[in-house]
Amino acid sequence: MSQLSNNAVLFNNIPESMPVKGKDLVFVQQSFDLNQILLNPGDFVLQTLYLSLDPFMRFRMRDPKVKSYVDAFELGKPVINLGIGRVIKSENSQYPIGVLLEGILPFQEYITVVSNNSNCIRSVVKEIPGIPLSAYLGLLGVSCWTAFIGLYDIGRIKSGETIFVSAASGAVGQLVVQLAKLEGLRVIASAGSAEKVEFLKNELGCDEAFNYKQEQPRVALKKYCPNGLDVFFDNVGGATLEAALSMANDHARFIECGMISQYNSSGLPGPRNLTLIVTKRIRMEGFIISDHKHKFKEYTNKMIQLVLDRRIVFKEHVSYGIENAIDGLIGMLKGDKLGKALVKLAD
Amino acid sequence: MSQLSNNAVLFNNIPESMPVKGKDLVFVQQSFDLNQILLNPGDFVLQTLYLSLDPFMRFRMRDPKVKSYVDAFELGKPVINLGIGRVIKSENSQYPIGVLLEGILPFQEYITVVSNNSNCIRSVVKEIPGIPLSAYLGLLGVSCWTAFIGLYDIGRIKSGETIFVSAASGAVGQLVVQLAKLEGLRVIASAGSAEKVEFLKNELGCDEAFNYKQEQPRVALKKYCPNGLDVFFDNVGGATLEAALSMANDHARFIECGMISQYNSSGLPGPRNLTLIVTKRIRMEGFIISDHKHKFKEYTNKMIQLVLDRRIVFKEHVSYGIENAIDGLIGMLKGDKLGKALVKLAD
Repeated sequence: MSQLSNNAVLFNNIPESMPVKGKDLVFVQQSFDLNQILLNPGDFVLQTLYLSLDPFMRFRMRDPKVKSYVDAFELGKPVINLGIGRVIKSENSQYPIGVLLEGILPFQEYITVVSNNSNCIRSVVKEIPGIPLSAYLGLLGVSCWTAFIGLYDIGRIKSGETIFVSAASGAVGQLVVQLAKLEGLRVIASAGSAEKVEFLKNELGCDEAFNYKQEQPRVALKKYCPNGLDVFFDNVGGATLEAALSMANDHARFIECGMISQYNSSGLPGPRNLTLIVTKRIRMEGFIISDHKHKFKEYTNKMIQLVLDRRIVFKEHVSYGIENAIDGLIGMLKGDKLGKALVKLAD
Repeated sequence: MSQLSNNAVLFNNIPESMPVKGKDLVFVQQSFDLNQILLNPGDFVLQTLYLSLDPFMRFRMRDPKVKSYVDAFELGKPVINLGIGRVIKSENSQYPIGVLLEGILPFQEYITVVSNNSNCIRSVVKEIPGIPLSAYLGLLGVSCWTAFIGLYDIGRIKSGETIFVSAASGAVGQLVVQLAKLEGLRVIASAGSAEKVEFLKNELGCDEAFNYKQEQPRVALKKYCPNGLDVFFDNVGGATLEAALSMANDHARFIECGMISQYNSSGLPGPRNLTLIVTKRIRMEGFIISDHKHKFKEYTNKMIQLVLDRRIVFKEHVSYGIENAIDGLIGMLKGDKLGKALVKLAD
């Protein structure tokens, strides 16, 4: 009865391009006897409920010798990312049984958190009526902060401007699109399937949207932005960035949030028209949300209000069970699915 | 006696890469009889004394259908650029004989300015004892404003930071280097000859300088910036920009002033490591000095004080005579000479 499966996803090998299931990422079956776990004062056991799947996880699957803003995954250890778990056994008065916690969790069904190593935990989740638990990993979490910080702090958007959003049906993109519409901008969006384009136009209210696999960004932007673009929210880099440079107005702002088109290939050449940054006086600025922690509470509160007022919709793509986490992760990297990617492990 | 040569340099053909003398730019011999010129009220005749030679002139030698911040040169007409002339005949009480004027002048020895088309004139030059007339075209003119606006308004430099300056012995670069040293930055510089590197180290006081034709920027920066760089003053783009990205610290500022390495070739790929703009949260910002006119007086006054206090040196490379203007212009574009490039036509 107390013998439980404790399966996990391990980082097994540094991928050369798109990670391969069974080679770079492996699923391992393990078991776990809750009764036999001995806890010291301060320790507790967490059952994983949700795990977030995010593009930057690809960037962590690298040689640890390459230093960056976030550490590489450890070979042979479970992949880690933001998740939510419930305390199911506890010797910690701060975190009694039943409490929901958010933190950087391993891709594993259960974890024993020892008190002197509990810095993976970031906060207690206080549920809000009408808002699902998964929202804390996107709608009210990283995706929310990224959209707000990008648009307001980096992009300094103004009503009446034209914004172009790439990967617009993704976790961040769908919030960017809706916030920009609420602020009175004209919104052009790109995504990678007809279904996503429909979602962007019909459910999110984009003024124009196109499938970049069927219409070249350069051609599409010429058609949909006859007066040029003032702001570009860049999630993909590459050819889309080159097209946005060619259509940018003077003093345009390029919010550099991610360049997923480049993550699976090293040494791809950059845009051929980067000199336009000088002649058009473009500001191109990268950002990482963890630098902007002081704004998290303000932006989360704004989003809660927008959600409760039914002014924001948020699409999730949920994979069920840790055994489907690798497919969910690779599917997210390939852009196969619509919306914020998550794994649900338990209720 | 009143028959004077009035030779000129015409824009004859759009160059494919480096402009070719006699094909893209042609020298024409003309003459001019001052006595026979009839002036209406408000008109005057200007003798050209100095003409400025600047990298962005290459950018004006383009198809006029390509719109940008500055018009293309007109085919069949003289090349134009900032210059200084003296009024030698006048029916204009504002500009009597002997007055020195600065403006966008044709590459020609004399011009008749008709009153209803005098917007080529920008200001009366008030000579300052101890400062040569040519200084108004660089040291106290465009080069001065560009260096100040780039460093302070775009780069927001701070004492103790490390700055890398490319094309550092050029008109703008030599001022950037000296202003950055005066502000307490560590200055690394690159240029294209041993003579320029000596000048940068021995006369301008750069902490380190290298010849990019002999040392790859990527290798040199690794050696000379062991702690990375905080600011890059970019005059060249291309491989140097790619190297600067690879050595940038988090939150580095890239002051995009020019990309001369790209001007002669269309469609050169951009830096292969542009994703670093996201992970390092780099701000890369282009600027054009004419957007910053409100600061010109303040910055010119600061520079006059620095020059009179002998805290700034400024090297010029002067070509003598309109017949040598094409060689001077092409030499400047090729980076053959050291310092601010000018043509002197008369005393």
